[in-house]
Amino acid sequence: MNYRIDNLQYCNWEREIFEINHEAGLNAVHVTVVYHEDFDEFLKRTSEWNKHFEENSDLIFLGKSYKDIEKAKLENKTAIFFGFQNCSPIEDDINLVEKVHEHGCLFMQLTYNNQSLLATGCYEKNDSGVTNFGREAIKEMNRVGIVIDMSHSAEKSTLDAIEISEKPIVITHANPFFWYNAKRNKSNVLLKTLADSGGMLGLSLYAHHLKDSSNCSLESFCEMTAKTADLIGVKNIGIGSDLCLNHPNSVVEWMRNGTWTKTKNYG
Amino acid sequence: MNYRIDNLQYCNWEREIFEINHEAGLNAVHVTVVYHEDFDEFLKRTSEWNKHFEENSDLIFLGKSYKDIEKAKLENKTAIFFGFQNCSPIEDDINLVEKVHEHGCLFMQLTYNNQSLLATGCYEKNDSGVTNFGREAIKEMNRVGIVIDMSHSAEKSTLDAIEISEKPIVITHANPFFWYNAKRNKSNVLLKTLADSGGMLGLSLYAHHLKDSSNCSLESFCEMTAKTADLIGVKNIGIGSDLCLNHPNSVVEWMRNGTWTKTKNYG
Repeated sequence: MNYRIDNLQYCNWEREIFEINHEAGLNAVHVTVVYHEDFDEFLKRTSEWNKHFEENSDLIFLGKSYKDIEKAKLENKTAIFFGFQNCSPIEDDINLVEKVHEHGCLFMQLTYNNQSLLATGCYEKNDSGVTNFGREAIKEMNRVGIVIDMSHSAEKSTLDAIEISEKPIVITHANPFFWYNAKRNKSNVLLKTLADSGGMLGLSLYAHHLKDSSNCSLESFCEMTAKTADLIGVKNIGIGSDLCLNHPNSVVEWMRNGTWTKTKNYG
Repeated sequence: MNYRIDNLQYCNWEREIFEINHEAGLNAVHVTVVYHEDFDEFLKRTSEWNKHFEENSDLIFLGKSYKDIEKAKLENKTAIFFGFQNCSPIEDDINLVEKVHEHGCLFMQLTYNNQSLLATGCYEKNDSGVTNFGREAIKEMNRVGIVIDMSHSAEKSTLDAIEISEKPIVITHANPFFWYNAKRNKSNVLLKTLADSGGMLGLSLYAHHLKDSSNCSLESFCEMTAKTADLIGVKNIGIGSDLCLNHPNSVVEWMRNGTWTKTKNYG
């Protein structure tokens, strides 16, 4: 059976968005529930989601395993899979990896754009790779069943994660560097290593990752997709739209800046 | 006037310890109030210290500036200066730098042994230097008046901190690498750069930093001190004993392991 999956969305969630995803025929969406939140703040996000699931049970439900994608298709709904764009909810505590999984987390980026306790982000000047704590966290994520997502990580850190992880990792939302030279896009070497290890790349529709930004043509995007398929095989490719609907600018700024700088600094 | 200062102690604080410091004629002690605590936990530590100050006001008081060292000498007391051995209390929020200063913090290590959000610790395999957030934190520490302590940091991170900081930095507790080859001890290049920028080194009595560990002779320690004075000048040298009295083993394990690993791993 074939499924329609969006590997990354972060919207200002409300019924209207779930209807858009339903009309698009999406069986599954990996949603960002956390950017920079700590563990307690993550729990608040899950409470908000519980309300969404209650009020929109005709459209969505919480996905807990791949079988829920099939279930979603049969029931004409969208399975929602929780993921983090930063590792902040596990704070500095290895035991929180299992706790966040118990609360539905199935994907976690080891870094957002900056250095984290686990690895280096793609906006840092130097990349020291996966840290001591990062090695322990990867082992624990493998054990409990959280997928390692390196979309916002630097190259050496990503190669380290592929090597250390006993399970395939993912880059849910980014494009190839050969098509558009952005810090967030990925080199051929990295993409091949990712694919050889069984991992996947979700191609992104976010303007900053696109050649010609918002003016990117469908033809150009499809050409890039075909070349990427030639490079790493079609089975390793998906779509991670990075759809970001109805958020005010203040939320977009917080995504990029977090609370680590007093001035506007997108890295 | 001359003063007796211990640049680092972390004891299981009680009156007996304050009496020992009083008998030793210490005018000032830089005490570790936090290893891995977050902001709220730091506030709890300050409450515990408030109790110590109330119950032992004949022996100690909270130091807030260098003038309190003179005051301590005149009043025959010990001024207690608060410091952190990790940057965990500022979490991922630049605004907490000013907050921790308001609560008495005058020294902060940018890292303990592992990677932090600010820089790399001396037990990591690779050292990427001061991070994006680290640069902002150093600027803010300079502004509010918190001294940067790189005792547990890796070499490039320390050299970066010296370069970025507009004020001298310190290594409150470590020894020269030329005397004893430990990950925590410091190279000649680093020590010279530190001294040239007006910083200071506190020589440490902690067994793991000593040649011949607990069997280190006084003669050997004094010879090392003389050589270090030849290398960087006597005015840049102090004592940071790393005195760690009356703690159970569980606390020592927590100091080294924090909560980042499920197995015993001292790095």
